[in-house]
Order: sequence, then C-alpha cells, then structure tokens
Amino acid sequence: MKAVTAEIITIGDEILYGQIVDTNSAWMGTELTKIGVKVKQITSISDNAVHIAQALDEAKTRADIILITGGLGPTKDDLTKHVLADYFHTSLKLHEPSLADIAAIFRVRGIELTELNRQQAFLPESCMPVRNALGTAPGMWFEQDGKVFVSMPGVPFEMKRMMTDLVLPQLKAYFKTPHIIHRVIQTVGLPESILAERLEAWETSLPEHLKLAYLPHLGGVRLRLTGQSMDEAALEQELQQEVDKLPDLIGKYIFAYGEVPLEEAIGRLLKERGLTVATAESCTGGFLAHKFTSIAGSSAYFTGGLVAYHNEVKIRELSIHPETLQQQGAVSEATVRAMAENVRQKFGTDIGLATSGIAGPDGGTPDKPVGTIWIAYADKYKTEAKLLNYNKNRLLNIEYTTMAVLNLLRQSLEPTVEE
Amino acid sequence: MKAVTAEIITIGDEILYGQIVDTNSAWMGTELTKIGVKVKQITSISDNAVHIAQALDEAKTRADIILITGGLGPTKDDLTKHVLADYFHTSLKLHEPSLADIAAIFRVRGIELTELNRQQAFLPESCMPVRNALGTAPGMWFEQDGKVFVSMPGVPFEMKRMMTDLVLPQLKAYFKTPHIIHRVIQTVGLPESILAERLEAWETSLPEHLKLAYLPHLGGVRLRLTGQSMDEAALEQELQQEVDKLPDLIGKYIFAYGEVPLEEAIGRLLKERGLTVATAESCTGGFLAHKFTSIAGSSAYFTGGLVAYHNEVKIRELSIHPETLQQQGAVSEATVRAMAENVRQKFGTDIGLATSGIAGPDGGTPDKPVGTIWIAYADKYKTEAKLLNYNKNRLLNIEYTTMAVLNLLRQSLEPTVEE
Repeated sequence: MKAVTAEIITIGDEILYGQIVDTNSAWMGTELTKIGVKVKQITSISDNAVHIAQALDEAKTRADIILITGGLGPTKDDLTKHVLADYFHTSLKLHEPSLADIAAIFRVRGIELTELNRQQAFLPESCMPVRNALGTAPGMWFEQDGKVFVSMPGVPFEMKRMMTDLVLPQLKAYFKTPHIIHRVIQTVGLPESILAERLEAWETSLPEHLKLAYLPHLGGVRLRLTGQSMDEAALEQELQQEVDKLPDLIGKYIFAYGEVPLEEAIGRLLKERGLTVATAESCTGGFLAHKFTSIAGSSAYFTGGLVAYHNEVKIRELSIHPETLQQQGAVSEATVRAMAENVRQKFGTDIGLATSGIAGPDGGTPDKPVGTIWIAYADKYKTEAKLLNYNKNRLLNIEYTTMAVLNLLRQSLEPTVEE
Repeated sequence: MKAVTAEIITIGDEILYGQIVDTNSAWMGTELTKIGVKVKQITSISDNAVHIAQALDEAKTRADIILITGGLGPTKDDLTKHVLADYFHTSLKLHEPSLADIAAIFRVRGIELTELNRQQAFLPESCMPVRNALGTAPGMWFEQDGKVFVSMPGVPFEMKRMMTDLVLPQLKAYFKTPHIIHRVIQTVGLPESILAERLEAWETSLPEHLKLAYLPHLGGVRLRLTGQSMDEAALEQELQQEVDKLPDLIGKYIFAYGEVPLEEAIGRLLKERGLTVATAESCTGGFLAHKFTSIAGSSAYFTGGLVAYHNEVKIRELSIHPETLQQQGAVSEATVRAMAENVRQKFGTDIGLATSGIAGPDGGTPDKPVGTIWIAYADKYKTEAKLLNYNKNRLLNIEYTTMAVLNLLRQSLEPTVEE
C-alpha cells in the first residue's frame, strides 16, 4: 500500500532569521502521521514571489499534498495569496462569506473594518475557500493533477483549528488513507526509563503492525499505541486487547486514556466525588490555579486560590506563624503543610493544596539551592507534604512543580491505588 | 550589494514526523544572520540518498553556503557521509586525527571503541574535516564552484560548539559578508492592520535596504526593522534615525525596544518607580499572577494575588457587596472596579488589578455572551475599568485578557502617554 505523501512549506522571514522556532510544522507532521500521510519534506522560505513559486514546483514533484502556512496577513509583505493566484492562473475575487466572517470579527471587537482587512476576503477564483474560525485570513484549497495544495495562516492557533476541523478530514476523504488508529495512555509519576522496563515484555510481544511510542512531558509520560490496517473494526479490537493488559503492569500511574490533560482528569474525579479545592501558592505563583481554571466547568470544584508571594501575605492571609517562617523558612515542610491546611479552612473547601520553593534563578542558598520545592495536600483526614528537587530553569521548575502537586492530589483521589 | 546566502538542510525522520521540533535551524538562522549571511531556505528531509542529493542540487542553485545537519550517526540508517562522498565524486579514507579524537572519547567513557564508531573516522578524501569537540561524528567542509558545503552532527550541543568555534569564523573569512542588523520594536494595543495604516507613509519612505516586518502575538505586534550594509556604523545610525521616528507615530503603543516580553517591561517600570502590585482574578484564574511571577525577581513588586473564582470568595475575601453581585452580576464594571480597589487595600499595595468575565465555552447569556470580560486598574488616585469582547476559545480569552490588563497597567505607568 503506497503511502500518501505531503510536503509542508512555511513562509516568513522570522523562521529563517531564527526569530521564531517553527513549531507549526512539527504539529502538522504529527497530525499528518496520525492519518497515515508521510511527510517527505518541510521547507521554510521567505516572503518572495519567485521563491514561493519555485518551492511549489519542487514540492509537487515529491508530494501528493502541499500544505502552505504563513504570508496571509493583511500587510503588504504578505504575498502568498497573490503568488497562488498567479501560480494557478486565476485572479482574486471577493468571497462574500469570508467578508462576512471578517466583518463579524471586527464587530465583536468593536473596531471598524479596515480596507486592509476587507482585502483579505478577496480570494483566488479557482480555490475552495477554507473557513478561518479564529482570524481574518481565510485558507485556500486548490486541486491540480490529483494533487492538493492548501494555504493556511501561520498563526498557530488559527492554523491548528483550521487543520483539525476542516483540512485533515477533507484530506482523509480525498485520499482514502488506510486506517491508522492511536490509543493514548497517559501516565504520571514514573520516569520514562522505568516505565519502559515495566513494559518491555509487553512491548516486544506486540504484533508487527502495532507500534508503541513514549512521549514524555513535564514529569508525565504519554504512551501512544499506533496500529495501521485496512480493517478498522479488527484493528480497534486488537488495540483494545493490548491496552487492557496495561492496568496490571502500570495501573497506579495511569491517569487517563486518550488526550486528557492531568488537570482535566482530576477535574472529573473531583466532580464525581463532589469535592472542592483551594490553592495556596508561593513559588508556582498562580500557575496551579491557572491549570485548574483552564478547564471548562472548573468552577464546579475549584473555589479559589491565594498567591502568597510575600511572607506578610503568608502571615496575614494564611495565618502562618512568623516563628515558623523565621525558624524553618518559607521553603519548609512546616510552612507548606500549614499553607495547605489553612487555605482549606479559609476557603471552606474539602481539599487544600500548597507550594513553596525556590524557582530561581536567584534566591538559592547552600542548604536550599534553586529547585528546592515543598508541596502539600490537605483534607479533613490528613495532610501530606513532599520535597521536590529540580535543577531546571524558572519556568520549568514552576511547571514541574504544578504537575507534581496535581499528581499528589490525584493519588489521594484514587482510593484503589496503594501508596 | 548582493548578500551571501545560506540554505540549511536537516536530515532525519523525527522532525518530519513531528517527534522533535527543529530548534537547530532557528539557532543557526540567528547565528548566520549575525554574521550577515541571509538564510534563504530551511529544508528538512529524511535519511534517503536520492532525496539528500536532490536537496543539495536544489540548494546550490539558491545559496552560497549549504549547511547540513544530521545523518552522521554510527548506524546504517545514517547515510549523509556516503551520499556526500558520492556527490563530490570522492571516496572515504581513514582520517587519523578524527580516529584519535573518537578513541579519546571512548577512553574517557571507559568503554571499548566499537568498529561502528571506528568507521566514523572514515571521511570523504576531498573534504576538510571539521573537528567535533563533543562527539564521535566529525564535521565535513567541502568547496565547489565558490560555494561551501558543511556537514555537521544533528546533536544540538555538538553542532552549536562546532558552528561557534570553527564553522562561523571560517565562513566569515571565506565570504566577505555585509552586516545585517535587526531592530525590534514591541507594541501592544493596536491590531496589526491599524498599526500598518499608521506606519504606511513611514514604511514606504524607508530606503531600499531597510525592511519592516509585522509579527503579531496575543494582541501585541512586534515590529522588526532589518537593515543590510557593508558599513556597520552608518547602518546602526540609519536604523536609529528611523526607529526614532516611531514614537510620534505610535508612541503610546510601544512598550519595549528589543526582545522583552510585556510582563518584563512592566516589571522594570514598577521597579524603577518602586511600586507594588496585587491581583484579584476571576476569569483569568491565576494566569495574570503567573505572568508577573514568571519573571525572575518579580517578588520586588508583586506582593500576591487572589483567585476569586466563586462569588462567596469575592464576597468574603474581597468584600464585594452581595447586592452588587446580585444586581449587576459578577461580570460587571461595578464588581471589577471593587475587586481592583479592594485587593489593593487587602494586600496594602500601590496598585490593584482585577479581571471578571466569561471565558467560555459555557456561562454565556444573550446580554453577556462568552468573551464578555471586564478588567480594572486601581491606584491611590484613580480606578479605571475596561470592557473587552473576544470570541476566542477559553485559553485564548484568558491569555488575551491577561495581555489587556498588563497593557492597562502599562499605560498608567507611562505618564507621558496621553489617553
């Protein structure tokens, strides 16, 4: 079975000059792989008409699908649309539905529609416009000699939404790709290497057409089991049989099946049990509360939080004893335990969570170097504290700590799980 | 003046499949730009002999310098070295100094030198070997028709060390390169299209060798002015003259010159003025506090914050009148003003910031649809509130709102700026 191939062309100087890293292409590569499309080449070029046309010529000699991002902005250094019109020997014509979308965006923003943005609704006549749900630059779908060319905005969230909702489904339909099914099993609490040891026998026993990938991220590891077959039903069943073997091997570390972030999986558990949470953050500085509130409907279980950055705030708002801070320090088990217990009282919730540590780059001491972080969980029955040691940069220390607190909460919500 | 041009070719499947993001190319692009080399294209391809040769053919039609990374590992799927030997009609020959380097690395690791690694010391006869100070794969420098081809390992730290110590200096010497200088001007508060209208006359009046680029991000727009010349001093002066014209055109929207995030620019202003801030967040749910605390040293001006997600918390912790919440709602000017004023009192700071809105996807009503968001700023003299309307997804509503609050704060810290 000959694989359908794709080439990704990214337009814009900022990638060539190294001012931004091209994360779009990596994302597109992942998504295309998922639907059985093989990415042959990723090409980044500048906003230059001749070069863009040349890249298109080269790409269509190699690939069935040519995906183009960038160069669709309203300003005059954005050439993509005009180059494509010439390339496909067609002319720009006002596309009323796109104009309506653009006008709507400006109406919502309460800003007057500018001529520049109005121009964005003029599209090559021969293309099938692809709706942009989140921005003013519509996408464009061209077909030529059985090959498909799709132009999309370079703004990541606009491109991703357009790919997910429209382009990927249309490509699947157009190229009758084989069934590639992924099963994602999300774990947290075990490093990749130990996880791999526990799964080694199982992994080697997998049939040829099933592949396992380890995708580590912030202290968690996503396992992706991928199968490819023309027989969808049989494949589904086969994958399920293999996934069903995992609880016996790594049960207590699995927090979700499928693309569910830890904070969402925890949100579901809290909802099921009708429990509420409050947070008292020092070193994570609001990121823990943000993780909870980034999930739709989190107001059902997240009551509120306190970012107690200064010691006065810890004393006044969280009733931490000044002696505790003086004798043990803000970064200590005693402080973080009291923070978790008191924020729970203060907000009248079932659970209190707390963090206190040295995120860095400054503030470290010989006995408490940067990356020394205490976290705590408190409920009506018990308080648990844990010492973390990371030697990462400030932002990563914050992110890893947040994952660790969420995992501490998760473990207490999984009664079946032995400590 | 014709610029020296480069093309970067990255070899390996993991980038194409999106398993890793290509950060090497961005780094190389930055370094090449610094020495006045213009990167024309970045190309990622797989370990395939035909495709590699094709990429080299295409690259040399466009660029003076072809930099290749990856495919130099000891395993049989690493083809680069063999492809290059064929491409330059030469054969592999043992390079003693490289063998000595490789042997030394194994001696240090206390491992016996394998035949596979010994093979890495065999290099194309016609190339100038480039020493790898940190790994077992030597680099290779080829010259053909005045063009330079350099092959380097894909391991980032090995490649960077090789580029910095050897390749970049040799390229500077080989090509007498012009100077390329960038000036970044960061703006917030004006959409790209309106910014472009205000700058149109100025942009069209720019001399041929100065180019302007618009780089939008979360409600802000980075402007990048790029100049190229053999005369560095004259270019610096020219760029400065043009940048100096911007305050009259868009002064109140410029928050920084250079690569400084808004929260850092604001942090500097707060430090300079010795002012402190506290936050009261509803819809942003801790993300505003996180933005402040993501900056090293923010404890100098960020005292703390409250995430008042539930109305009871707004009432109890922020003394919002229940009637206000009942009659005007949590998402109202009255509520958000009181939140900003009271959090300022509560934490004893100079400034209080507040957010309250409907981030979505649920919770919208006909008169207050998703994306209806109130933000407020309060200090000793005044309180300011602003109504925002976004039609984005939950996370983006949170991020855009946070940018808007930070900008509200910034405006009040810029006394010269007229409203």
